[in-house]
Amino acid sequence: MKKRVYEIIEEAEPGNRASEIFDIFLISFISLNAISLVVGTVEEIHQIAPRAFRLFEIVSVAIFTVEYLLRVWSCSVNPRYAHPVLGRLRFMVSPLALIDLLAILPFYMAPFIGLHGLDLRFLRAVRLLAQIVRLSRYFSSMRTLARVLHTRRGELLAVVLVLSLLLVMTSSLIFFAENEAQPDTFANIPQAMWWSVITLTTVGYGDVFPVTVAGRLLAGLIAVVGIGLFALPAGILGSGFMEEIGKGKNATRVCPHCGKEIHE
Amino acid sequence: MKKRVYEIIEEAEPGNRASEIFDIFLISFISLNAISLVVGTVEEIHQIAPRAFRLFEIVSVAIFTVEYLLRVWSCSVNPRYAHPVLGRLRFMVSPLALIDLLAILPFYMAPFIGLHGLDLRFLRAVRLLAQIVRLSRYFSSMRTLARVLHTRRGELLAVVLVLSLLLVMTSSLIFFAENEAQPDTFANIPQAMWWSVITLTTVGYGDVFPVTVAGRLLAGLIAVVGIGLFALPAGILGSGFMEEIGKGKNATRVCPHCGKEIHE
Amino acid sequence: MKKRVYEIIEEAEPGNRASEIFDIFLISFISLNAISLVVGTVEEIHQIAPRAFRLFEIVSVAIFTVEYLLRVWSCSVNPRYAHPVLGRLRFMVSPLALIDLLAILPFYMAPFIGLHGLDLRFLRAVRLLAQIVRLSRYFSSMRTLARVLHTRRGELLAVVLVLSLLLVMTSSLIFFAENEAQPDTFANIPQAMWWSVITLTTVGYGDVFPVTVAGRLLAGLIAVVGIGLFALPAGILGSGFMEEIGKGKNATRVCPHCGKEIHE
Amino acid sequence: MKKRVYEIIEEAEPGNRASEIFDIFLISFISLNAISLVVGTVEEIHQIAPRAFRLFEIVSVAIFTVEYLLRVWSCSVNPRYAHPVLGRLRFMVSPLALIDLLAILPFYMAPFIGLHGLDLRFLRAVRLLAQIVRLSRYFSSMRTLARVLHTRRGELLAVVLVLSLLLVMTSSLIFFAENEAQPDTFANIPQAMWWSVITLTTVGYGDVFPVTVAGRLLAGLIAVVGIGLFALPAGILGSGFMEEIGKGKNATRVCPHCGKEIHE
Repeated sequence: MKKRVYEIIEEAEPGNRASEIFDIFLISFISLNAISLVVGTVEEIHQIAPRAFRLFEIVSVAIFTVEYLLRVWSCSVNPRYAHPVLGRLRFMVSPLALIDLLAILPFYMAPFIGLHGLDLRFLRAVRLLAQIVRLSRYFSSMRTLARVLHTRRGELLAVVLVLSLLLVMTSSLIFFAENEAQPDTFANIPQAMWWSVITLTTVGYGDVFPVTVAGRLLAGLIAVVGIGLFALPAGILGSGFMEEIGKGKNATRVCPHCGKEIHE
Repeated sequence: MKKRVYEIIEEAEPGNRASEIFDIFLISFISLNAISLVVGTVEEIHQIAPRAFRLFEIVSVAIFTVEYLLRVWSCSVNPRYAHPVLGRLRFMVSPLALIDLLAILPFYMAPFIGLHGLDLRFLRAVRLLAQIVRLSRYFSSMRTLARVLHTRRGELLAVVLVLSLLLVMTSSLIFFAENEAQPDTFANIPQAMWWSVITLTTVGYGDVFPVTVAGRLLAGLIAVVGIGLFALPAGILGSGFMEEIGKGKNATRVCPHCGKEIHE
Repeated sequence: MKKRVYEIIEEAEPGNRASEIFDIFLISFISLNAISLVVGTVEEIHQIAPRAFRLFEIVSVAIFTVEYLLRVWSCSVNPRYAHPVLGRLRFMVSPLALIDLLAILPFYMAPFIGLHGLDLRFLRAVRLLAQIVRLSRYFSSMRTLARVLHTRRGELLAVVLVLSLLLVMTSSLIFFAENEAQPDTFANIPQAMWWSVITLTTVGYGDVFPVTVAGRLLAGLIAVVGIGLFALPAGILGSGFMEEIGKGKNATRVCPHCGKEIHE
Repeated sequence: MKKRVYEIIEEAEPGNRASEIFDIFLISFISLNAISLVVGTVEEIHQIAPRAFRLFEIVSVAIFTVEYLLRVWSCSVNPRYAHPVLGRLRFMVSPLALIDLLAILPFYMAPFIGLHGLDLRFLRAVRLLAQIVRLSRYFSSMRTLARVLHTRRGELLAVVLVLSLLLVMTSSLIFFAENEAQPDTFANIPQAMWWSVITLTTVGYGDVFPVTVAGRLLAGLIAVVGIGLFALPAGILGSGFMEEIGKGKNATRVCPHCGKEIHE
């Protein structure tokens, strides 16, 4: 019977109806839970039926707790976690089980660390993020994205390193140029980094911008040259993601002359 | 005679002079109508000759009504809508005929649902949009764009799904970081999504931006990494469109060695 | 002697020393003239030596006038403008000669159309732009850019057409959503177009932005989808330009197996 | 012994343990020094332990001075700088040695040029930038970036030239259109260039933007067309950098038919 529970709770293999239904139920329920956590932050909506939100919270945490306990109980079916005690502990510290725990634990912790504003908000945020991570497990395109992050980590690291040095450089320059004219907004180099990031990603909110001639010359130069480098991590992720999605399609090409397949 | 009307009203086949002239007349008239609806919203211009605008509106709706009735009447020439009653009903619920109807019906509905501001504006907006959709039928590049939207719908869906999850994630994080410092602008997660979209598309109006250190660190990180993903739908549409436009040109390439054509 | 003048004034062929020196002198002088016109708009600098600016203006216009008259006089050497009167008139309405004229004529027109602010500024702007166009004749990369604009005009036109329709569409939608909440900033559809352009190019000044829920949903959607299409003209020009610049380099490639050149 | 010092101080060849340890020590120390200079600009942090910052400054400058002197002393081992006096002078004016000097000299200059605000800030900025340049020597990806800047200098120059002319052109146009309506923000053409750069890079702070109809039409047109050209230097650097990073990976490709390697 433990084996049956394990099969149902684990992600469905094609053909296993009971497991598929459980997956659909779980995805819907996690989605509802996430929506409730998001919508619940809107005071106007929350006040319409605060009890309904509370009730749904309790019910959903109850269900997720049962699910979590069943997972821990049945995990020993998996040969990797076969040992009754150590295996279960090893399972509980696996990233997947930790995320599951983070989706419920904050609820139980609420009464203990005090109910003042910040903490409650933090606990809710943790639960919401955990739920979204759980949801993304079932979405193949989210798994693709995670895979891209993993395979391109070398390039990303090299780029992030270069960006860090450039960030310090541009921030020092603009700090030096603008500090005297705007001692509040360019008060120190770490604060000038906010300007650098927002300018080099071309977001440009307009909350901080240079006003001196030297600062504007520098800013123009930095913008024209540096934007391309700050676009790299975004570009690596974006293009890597598109590549992975498109892989299934034209992975094989047939040479038009000899008719043989060319795997690229 | 019904067949002749049908041929003239339908989009011209090359060589059919009467139909071509009708098309040119219709395109010009729809354009004029759209321009009149756009320009009519400028109070200063509208007040110069309000009667002329009204007269042109009545005349154009009259002409479009006649055109619509002729289309419904003559559609039975098309074998798909051959049945005198059911065929015409089937034609009337086809997307093309519905758009044609939306370009005139709001005019007739105006007296019935009351003339207070909003409704009239809404009816005009519907007519204007319907006219633009009608216009785009005759523009091959707009049809190309529609085709791209259709052929890339799979990729677009996958991307939109990922973006939705990322949107909820980044909005939750920034909400948690900024809510206390800016309880009005980051009042709840749905409101924080406005910040997320405007930042990740690099528009950056500057109406909402983080002010706390945690919020700025998060925003910088989100901007550097997330922009590439939010650029994907735009990129898919843009590159797909350019590809389709360029297709006619270099669809065939000649192999420099054997002189045979390679169709790609 | 007319032939000698013609050869010197025309762009230098390699080896013709006199003509080369004349070209260098002319480029330097046009540059100086443009810089003087630009810098002269800075009141603080202009007031240091208003007479020097005026003197340089008179001298440079005198020199450009002599140059223009010499060009008109010597153009009959060119077989295309051989006829003494008609040929010269034909030369004078050629784009190159018109630009040369625009760089001097405004100076002579100043006393006739009144000296009040706007006109003088307009005349100076015309002269400055004419000088920059003249300069760009001598810069091969500017000629490359002009060639790209010409060869890609078909694609650019198709894109501009699509953008126009999209612009009307998005502007109508946002106008309908925001007009009631912000009757001043979204007063009419043409005014809403300013918002559309600045949002879809991701510039996002922040002078106009939606504030209603409907408007923000629309704006988010429009931004995520539409940005790619508004990036197309910029992309076509940019990539076309880079292609042309890179052409000289790897125009021919050698097949590594048979050693023959492959021209692409 | 001089040879031993030289080997240790110079960047480590694989296998030379003493030199590797020295490199790691130096990188850590330069990083700490840079962090201290950055963090030291934050008044709140600096005031916690101003003496600690001062002490660390003195110690680090002392160490860097000893390192510099050792470098100058031992450089004569290198055949290029073999001559005891002239060789050392030649070494001292090499870019690498100058950067090393700039990282310490400002400290010694402080007492001489007066201690009023600006100068001290400038001296610190020079030291910080010198330290970052020193750091980047040890980071292969920063060296890659420098190489890209060098190999693409031709294209970059051509693009920068075109951009300069375009900048003057767009600034003149917007100046002419907006000067009367906004005499303060568009006071002269050089000031209008700030608007041009910030718009064409799509940063769009929102501190300056056109308000007249003519200005907005111009700005829209400039934005739609010009953005692509101002994205070129950023694009050249970005793509060049990614290419270089990716070079190691698929530098060689195997022809699927004959099994021979194709070096690209």
